[in-house]
Amino acid sequence: MAELNGNLLVAQSGGPTAVINASIAGVIQEAGHHECIEEIYGGLNGILGILNEELIDLNDEKARNIEGLRYTPAAALGTCRYKLDFKKKPEQAARDMDRLFQIFEAHNIRYFFYAGGNDSQDTAHKIHLEAAKRGYEMRVMGVPKTIDNDLPCTDHCPGYGSVVKYNCATVMEVGLDVGSMATDDGSCCIVEVMGRAAGWIAAGTVLAKQGNAANPPHIILLPEIAFDTEKFLARVQEVVALNRYCVVVCGEGLKDAQGNELGADKSRLDAFGHPILAGASEVLKNLVQDRLKLKSRTVLLGYAQRAAGHFASQIDAEEAHACGVAAARAAADGKSGLMPKIVRTGSNPYKWTIGLEPLENIANVEHFIPRDWISEDGFLPNDKFVEYAAPLIVGETKAPTKDGLPHYVVLEKNKVEKKLGPRA
Amino acid sequence: MAELNGNLLVAQSGGPTAVINASIAGVIQEAGHHECIEEIYGGLNGILGILNEELIDLNDEKARNIEGLRYTPAAALGTCRYKLDFKKKPEQAARDMDRLFQIFEAHNIRYFFYAGGNDSQDTAHKIHLEAAKRGYEMRVMGVPKTIDNDLPCTDHCPGYGSVVKYNCATVMEVGLDVGSMATDDGSCCIVEVMGRAAGWIAAGTVLAKQGNAANPPHIILLPEIAFDTEKFLARVQEVVALNRYCVVVCGEGLKDAQGNELGADKSRLDAFGHPILAGASEVLKNLVQDRLKLKSRTVLLGYAQRAAGHFASQIDAEEAHACGVAAARAAADGKSGLMPKIVRTGSNPYKWTIGLEPLENIANVEHFIPRDWISEDGFLPNDKFVEYAAPLIVGETKAPTKDGLPHYVVLEKNKVEKKLGPRA
Repeated sequence: MAELNGNLLVAQSGGPTAVINASIAGVIQEAGHHECIEEIYGGLNGILGILNEELIDLNDEKARNIEGLRYTPAAALGTCRYKLDFKKKPEQAARDMDRLFQIFEAHNIRYFFYAGGNDSQDTAHKIHLEAAKRGYEMRVMGVPKTIDNDLPCTDHCPGYGSVVKYNCATVMEVGLDVGSMATDDGSCCIVEVMGRAAGWIAAGTVLAKQGNAANPPHIILLPEIAFDTEKFLARVQEVVALNRYCVVVCGEGLKDAQGNELGADKSRLDAFGHPILAGASEVLKNLVQDRLKLKSRTVLLGYAQRAAGHFASQIDAEEAHACGVAAARAAADGKSGLMPKIVRTGSNPYKWTIGLEPLENIANVEHFIPRDWISEDGFLPNDKFVEYAAPLIVGETKAPTKDGLPHYVVLEKNKVEKKLGPRA
Repeated sequence: MAELNGNLLVAQSGGPTAVINASIAGVIQEAGHHECIEEIYGGLNGILGILNEELIDLNDEKARNIEGLRYTPAAALGTCRYKLDFKKKPEQAARDMDRLFQIFEAHNIRYFFYAGGNDSQDTAHKIHLEAAKRGYEMRVMGVPKTIDNDLPCTDHCPGYGSVVKYNCATVMEVGLDVGSMATDDGSCCIVEVMGRAAGWIAAGTVLAKQGNAANPPHIILLPEIAFDTEKFLARVQEVVALNRYCVVVCGEGLKDAQGNELGADKSRLDAFGHPILAGASEVLKNLVQDRLKLKSRTVLLGYAQRAAGHFASQIDAEEAHACGVAAARAAADGKSGLMPKIVRTGSNPYKWTIGLEPLENIANVEHFIPRDWISEDGFLPNDKFVEYAAPLIVGETKAPTKDGLPHYVVLEKNKVEKKLGPRA
């Protein structure tokens, strides 16, 4: 394949993670080793910013700060949830695609990297196909990222290990707290974690048990397993009888047998007359308090869990970085339309390498927990799951601290001069 | 003062913290240096367990584990919320007091240490007075502990620095997350933290700004300042116009001008027909979404914040340990009816020492944030507050990790043989 000289554009999309910036660092650092890659640009807020020609010059950033992206959580380039939606908005999508290629041409972008989850891989795939169709020579790579761990083909997703590690520490600590307060009347704590469709995040908290059945979490409620009120309450009672307290983890997308999300009842109004959207954990808390007369509290980690750089997984950050490096190397090598994936090459000790997967196999496919990785009663992932997930949370990234708080990198974000008029 | 030979009993009370065990370690380790102190016992679950004669032998624990208490969060001896309530339940309280002294005598307890907040210092004070009244020679010391930071006389309370440190890291990380997702339509995140009466915990998150007005948190709502819907919404709009996103921290006990807690409306019912007690953050979220049409999410840290040993403050853990040491040393020295307090002897660099305060000055007194430490509009603590709080979060305790998770100590808890019949 002939060498392709030109500029690189990298952007981030979808919900942030603790290690998505590590992947960007990998792309930038590897790209710097290839002479065919000239300027290195970042697109602000994913394709939404690119459509507005909001590009920054990443070669203008301090090398120290690029290295610092390896422990800085959230999306340093900004992110978006904007899609090229040819199904629902075909005209808008076609206009957007035209505009993207005007931008690519105007800035001689010949290497395009898009870090994100299912939707973002779909976007990268469409841009890859469009480039071929237009005869515009450009190498397009997806970079995997999602705390949800629901991308297919890859053993797991960068971002997943870190959210599991932080959530496990939280469950252990909440368990120590609730356990130390538990006297004979018992108490219960419900920890709600992210995961609307797939329960990978909730399931991961089983690692907090560290192999001891008495340790929290005692019950894990997955969106994949229909919630049964009576079975749940019976199990809480069993656990409290045994341990005097009970820690429940639930995925936010928990559903009943009819497929209705527990936390999505819009009929209730608050003091201001506005609808209350209490989450699944609030519904479970009220259930436990009212039916079992057990004191019950909730923890809703929300965004805190996916941005918790202060306790991110070192292996996760390394793998995320390696995915960025592999993407840049493959593109410089002449490849396009691919996404680096993590391949598990050994267990005990855990070994991994990076492979490459065609984007067409990734885009819009969701990957769920195998049913035989979950106990028959559906309340806990089993040893197969533990063997899978345990290696992903090992080690801590070493973010420096300043005045007692993590010292994260903020990029300078020097803008690249615009060459086109505003978006129509 | 004549040397008093006998056994020591230490117990914990009230809500756990990340460093209350460090105080217990201080008591145990210092007591070991004094020959007058013979056996060292722990009372399980505070006076509730002591009333049931549930004592454990702390000299039976491994020295390594006692040292490990310095980084292990929650109450290793168990805790309770049980009070000697002579006002509301005088007969029960009198029976309990009798029973306590039977236990003390049966086990020759001559040194009694009670670690906790306002209520617990009151309990310690009552036991101190009762011992004198009965002519039972015993040295009673309170040990300060509360994330709420609302004990009087002490510069601050062990446990406060750690909850502030963890909450600040969370606010920084949530801010990076929300900020990186913010495009021109803006978004808002409400982080609810503990603190029902005093706003010390919420106020502490101002340190996450690290002196930069643009940094989160942008608004801090304290229980001490009456909540005004219109002023709040106007401020959110201002912040979003300036920064494209807004992070709000609110204390759980946020109240309106009539003194009603925002999150305490019991009139709403969930899908099961049970009352919904959505917290202040849910009410604020719905308000921002409905009135300002701004996407809004909540984080409810709950118990996770006060048990977060994985990111506890080193200075806090050191001061907590020193309070335990000082209590044991003072008691061995013949003193009684006191509580060690933290005395600030220098700022810039921060210096501290431990003093002793009579329990009668501590019991049942609450300490609030001075009004002139808060901005005039009530939305942010000012430089006076920052100068006060900044030194309290410096450094991290060094909990070892195992398989990627904190490796906390669990005590053996070998029971001391009971000498009395069951509690009447």
